[in-house]
Formats: sequence, C-alpha cells, structure tokens
Amino acid sequence: MNDNTSGLTLLGLGAMGTALAQAWLTAGHRLTVWNRTPGRAEALAGRGARIAGSAAEAVAANRLVVTCLLDDASVGEALDGADLTGKDLVNLTTGTPGQGRARAAWAAERGARFLDGGVMAVPPMIGAPESGAFIFYSGSRDLLDEHRDTLAVPARPVHVGEDAGYAALQDVALLSAMTGMFAGVTHAFALLRREKDISPKEFAPTLVAWLTAMTSYTYGIADHLESGDYTRNVTSNLAMMVEGNATMLRTAEEQGISAELITPFTTLMERRLADGHGDEGTAGVVDLLLR
Amino acid sequence: MNDNTSGLTLLGLGAMGTALAQAWLTAGHRLTVWNRTPGRAEALAGRGARIAGSAAEAVAANRLVVTCLLDDASVGEALDGADLTGKDLVNLTTGTPGQGRARAAWAAERGARFLDGGVMAVPPMIGAPESGAFIFYSGSRDLLDEHRDTLAVPARPVHVGEDAGYAALQDVALLSAMTGMFAGVTHAFALLRREKDISPKEFAPTLVAWLTAMTSYTYGIADHLESGDYTRNVTSNLAMMVEGNATMLRTAEEQGISAELITPFTTLMERRLADGHGDEGTAGVVDLLLR
Ligand SMILES: NC(=O)c1ccc[n+]([C@@H]2O[C@H](COP(=O)([O-])OP(=O)(O)OC[C@H]3O[C@@H](n4cnc5c(N)ncnc54)[C@H](OP(=O)(O)O)[C@@H]3O)[C@@H](O)[C@H]2O)c1
Ligand SMILES: NC(=O)c1ccc[n+]([C@@H]2O[C@H](COP(=O)([O-])OP(=O)(O)OC[C@H]3O[C@@H](n4cnc5c(N)ncnc54)[C@H](OP(=O)(O)O)[C@@H]3O)[C@@H](O)[C@H]2O)c1
Repeated sequence: MNDNTSGLTLLGLGAMGTALAQAWLTAGHRLTVWNRTPGRAEALAGRGARIAGSAAEAVAANRLVVTCLLDDASVGEALDGADLTGKDLVNLTTGTPGQGRARAAWAAERGARFLDGGVMAVPPMIGAPESGAFIFYSGSRDLLDEHRDTLAVPARPVHVGEDAGYAALQDVALLSAMTGMFAGVTHAFALLRREKDISPKEFAPTLVAWLTAMTSYTYGIADHLESGDYTRNVTSNLAMMVEGNATMLRTAEEQGISAELITPFTTLMERRLADGHGDEGTAGVVDLLLR
Repeated sequence: MNDNTSGLTLLGLGAMGTALAQAWLTAGHRLTVWNRTPGRAEALAGRGARIAGSAAEAVAANRLVVTCLLDDASVGEALDGADLTGKDLVNLTTGTPGQGRARAAWAAERGARFLDGGVMAVPPMIGAPESGAFIFYSGSRDLLDEHRDTLAVPARPVHVGEDAGYAALQDVALLSAMTGMFAGVTHAFALLRREKDISPKEFAPTLVAWLTAMTSYTYGIADHLESGDYTRNVTSNLAMMVEGNATMLRTAEEQGISAELITPFTTLMERRLADGHGDEGTAGVVDLLLR
C-alpha cells in the first residue's frame, strides 16, 4: 500500500514551479500538477504529468503536496477548498518567517504535517546538482526524512530547525547579505563609470576575486558575535576602518557620485567608534541595528 | 655603477611600512629607512636596515624612494626638505584619485618620476605570495618596469594606467564594494541575532558559500554597463527583485531590526522600476548614482 511513495502533487507552474515539475518528471516521479491558469499545465502533459482540474483534486491525488505560488496569500487561496487531512504539505513559496510559522499552524489545524522551504536558486539551477542550488527547510523533520529522496530531486535539502520560520529567516538573511554586496558592487561601478579608460568587463574579475577573498572576514564577525568579545584577532580595527571610510567618501565626491549606498554603514561605524569601541571589528554594528 | 639597482629607501614604519621593510630585508635588498618617531626604525637595524637621521638624508641614499605614511598630507610634510631630482618616487600611502594626480604633478615639478600605489592587503599578507596580496600601481609604467623585481617583493604589482589617479580609484572601488558586502553581512547577522537556536558560527559557512557563488553576477552587471543593453541574459529581473525586496523588508520588521543598511539600494531599485525598467537587471542603478 505504498503506491504514493514517489508520487507527488505540485501546485503552481510559474517559472520556478515549471523547473521543479521538469526535475521530478525527469527523475521519473509520478507528478500531478495544477495551475490557476490552465495553459501552463497542459504544456507538461506531454512529458507525463497528470493534470488536475482543481487544486482540491490535485491535493487529493497524493499525500505529498508541494506549493510554489506567488506569495503566502496565494497559498491560502489555492488551498482554500482542499482537504488537507493526513497530507504532507511542503511550501516552496517565498515568505517571511512569520508567514512560515502562521502557515505551519494553519496546516496543523487542518491535520497536515508541514515543511516550509526557501529555494536558494534560480530556475535553471533546479535539478542540476552541480549548480550548487539548495533549499532551506524548516518545520517537520519527519516529513523531510520520509520524502527525502523526492525532495532532494530539485535541489539539496538543508533542514535548519523545527521552527517553521527558520527556512524563511535564513533565506532572507542570505538575500539581504547579497543585496548589500550588490549595493557595494553598484557603488564601485559608479565610481568608474565616467572613466573612459577603465572597462567594467576588465575590472570585473578583479572585483570578483577581491570580494571572494574578503568573504572570509565573515567568520571573524561570527566568532565575535558568538563569543561576545568583539576585539579578538582583529587585524583592521574600527578606528582604522573609519579613517579609510573618509578616503572612500572623498573619492565618491571627487568622482561626482552619490555615496548613499555606503553611508548608512560608515555612519554606524562612526557611531560605534564614538561610543569608545575603536579596537573592535565591525561586529558591534550588528547590535546597533537591533530595535 | 649600478649599485642602487636593488637598494631602496622607505619612509614610514607604521604597521604597513614595517611589513614592507621586513619583506625587502628578507629578500636581501639594501634598505635605508626613516620614521618620524625614531624608535621604530631602530628595531629594524638589527635586521640590517640602514637608519637615516632625516627624511632628506634617506631620500639622498637611493634612487628608488618608497613612502608609506598615514595620509597624503604627511607625504608632503615628510618630503618637504628633500631633493627629489632624478628620484623614482613610489607612494604606497592610501589616498584619493585626486590626491594621487596632484602628488604626481608635485613630483614632476621636483624632477622625480612618480608611481602611486594602492596596497590591497593587510600587513600579514605582505611578502607572502600565496596570500593573494597585490598592489595597484598607476603613473609611470617605466618606473615600475625598471624596479619591477624590487617592487614585486612585498606583493604582486598590477599596473592600471598612466593616470596617477587610477590606482587610488580602483583601490577605493574595491574597498567600497567590500563595505557594501559587509553592510549586507551585518544586516544578515542582525536578522538572526535574537534567535537562540541559530549559531552565527554555524551559519557563517553557508553565508560565505552563498556570497561567493553570487559574486559572479558582477560579470553580468559589467556586461550590461559595457554594452549599454541592461536587459540581456537577465534571469531575475528588477520587477521580480523588487517583489523579493518587500519580503526582505518585512522580515527585518518582524525580527525587530532596522533595515537602514539595505533600504538605500531597494529604494533605488524601486525608482528604476518606476521609470519603466522592470525587465532590466540592476545595472541601471549605477546611473542613478551619477550626479
Ligand atoms: N523564479 C525565481 O528565480 C525564484 C527563486 C527562488 C524562489 N522563488 C519563489 O518561488 C515562488 C514562485 O516563483 P515563480 O518565479 O515561479 O513566480 P511566477 O513565475 O510569477 O509564478 C507565480 C505562480 O503563482 C501562481 N499564482 C499567483 N497568484 C495566485 C493565486 N492567487 N492563486 C493561485 N495561484 C496563483 C501563478 O499562477 P498563474 O499562472 O495563474 O498566474 C503562477 O503559477 C515565489 O514565491 C518566488 O519568490 C522564485
Ligand atoms: N595597515 C593596513 O592594513 C593597510 C592596508 C592597506 C593600506 N594601508 C595604508 O598604508 C599607509 C600606512 O598605514 P599603516 O597601517 O602603516 O599606518 P600606521 O601604523 O598608523 O603608521 C603611520 C605612519 O605614518 C607616519 N606619519 C604620520 N604622520 C606623519 C607625518 N606628518 N610626517 C611623517 N610621518 C608621519 C607615522 O610615523 P610615527 O611613527 O612617527 O607616528 C607612521 O610611520 C596608510 O596610508 C594606510 O591607509 C594600510
């Protein structure tokens, strides 16, 4: 009576949903799909997907039900009339930690086990193990363990806690760090923008190599935060960095560009320095962000 | 009559100057040093350095003269009474592009060739080729070519143009990008700061791997800037990113942290989207920074 072990249902066939569907079909899984706009599902029928006429019907077809929809509200809407009793619901829709926790409670009320997921990949990386793609999961570890073979098909699963909010939290933490990095990259390119003798494409490899080398300072910050000692093994301290920042800001001025992408950080570094922490690294700035 | 080929003078024995001096002494170069506060020079005498009693005397000792002082003003002060005629002056003091250009003109007036340098390393990386350290040089390429063996001792030389401002410009561009990256890392750690079940040290490797993988988007931005076509090969477009930003900002709110380190970038992305560029990547934000 184990005929649903590798069968699953997928709701949502946008860019990411379609990539997931293709990965499962390629791996030989029996897949039932549903999409609000029917046209998108039909394209997958030729590859062996079963098409359900409604979300409720799709949910009924398999124990394992994966959602990959626009946002948390659309998950609630799509599953509104479906019977979730005894289902294993895996939500790959991006949301906040709070939405993940609320959705977990909502699923529990309806008799389903729940796992929230944060997909750390763009669609072309799905089903390609060498791409480095992975999916943060939080919530029921039992659910993940039971369906691990299936859930590992699109990308490597990384379980980060029973708290259903943790997948979204770590997903958003990575996206936020990346946003900062590209704010910095944007500022760097702006500095060079008017220099006709500097080619962005020639500069890019140097920039990438530099950022890659510098990422390792992250370990030092983590060590400071975990130990509570923000001064140990500091090579460039806050006092030195604040001096360097002055050169950065003056250069932005000279090159005629706005420094708005970097000043919030330099300002907080100055505040921490003014509070008497010149011998620290930057870990203290983390605390200045807490409300 | 070639007895100065590998002899050189170094002015400034702070943290960086001392590392430079040690690298040259270890490599067997005849080194004359001077430091404003004499104590620091004496410590190097035991290692074979010749100590000059004044900056002018130190300059007189060798054709190749390297300065590594606090800032551009201190270079002017230290060299005030020195005869620079026929000298090859290499300035490893951090400054702005404008300071580099002005210092080049100042050196030319005094009959010296000039090379400005931006040291991309912390002191422990100096004289250790495997550390990845390098020095941006701009200004006289002839000077660099003539003294390449000597100048390559502390770190790999990378000549980036005859314009003496370019070393400082590219130095500052890398530091600015790094500043953005650590603003992002700081925000990420702040998001997790109050979660007792998430260890910063356990999260750090994931964060480092993620940032390292994402650095490659820099090539796409460079390609957009160079071609002027900001839409080609876009996987995640501005419209999608702005939606993702909303989740980021809401998560910061939920976690009780200020989003000030990332909002300047998300705001500019929104502005570019509102201007009708939803199908682009982020390259257009570079243009929004130009004054
Ligand atoms: N694409 C990426 O690079 C990427 C990366 C990581 C995570 N994600 C996340 O994955 C999820 C899906 O992304 P995507 O790129 O596939 O988005 P997408 O291409 O815009 O597709 C959105 C999907 O949601 C459906 N939908 C929207 N509102 C709905 C509603 N009220 N009821 C039912 N269905 C609704 C759409 O159905 P219709 O076809 O009927 O409009 C479509 O199937 C998002 O949460 C996204 O943040 C995406
Ligand atoms: N340390 C790094 O990680 C690093 C990395 C890259 C670039 N750099 C750059 O390298 C340069 C030197 O840095 P550092 O770390 O060696 O700095 P430091 O340890 O603070 O040393 C500063 C040096 O400048 C001298 N100095 C200051 N004002 C002077 C003046 N008016 N006249 C003559 N000498 C003066 C000091 O002499 P006294 O001993 O008499 O005070 C000392 O030798 C700076 O431009 C810095 O930005 C440093």
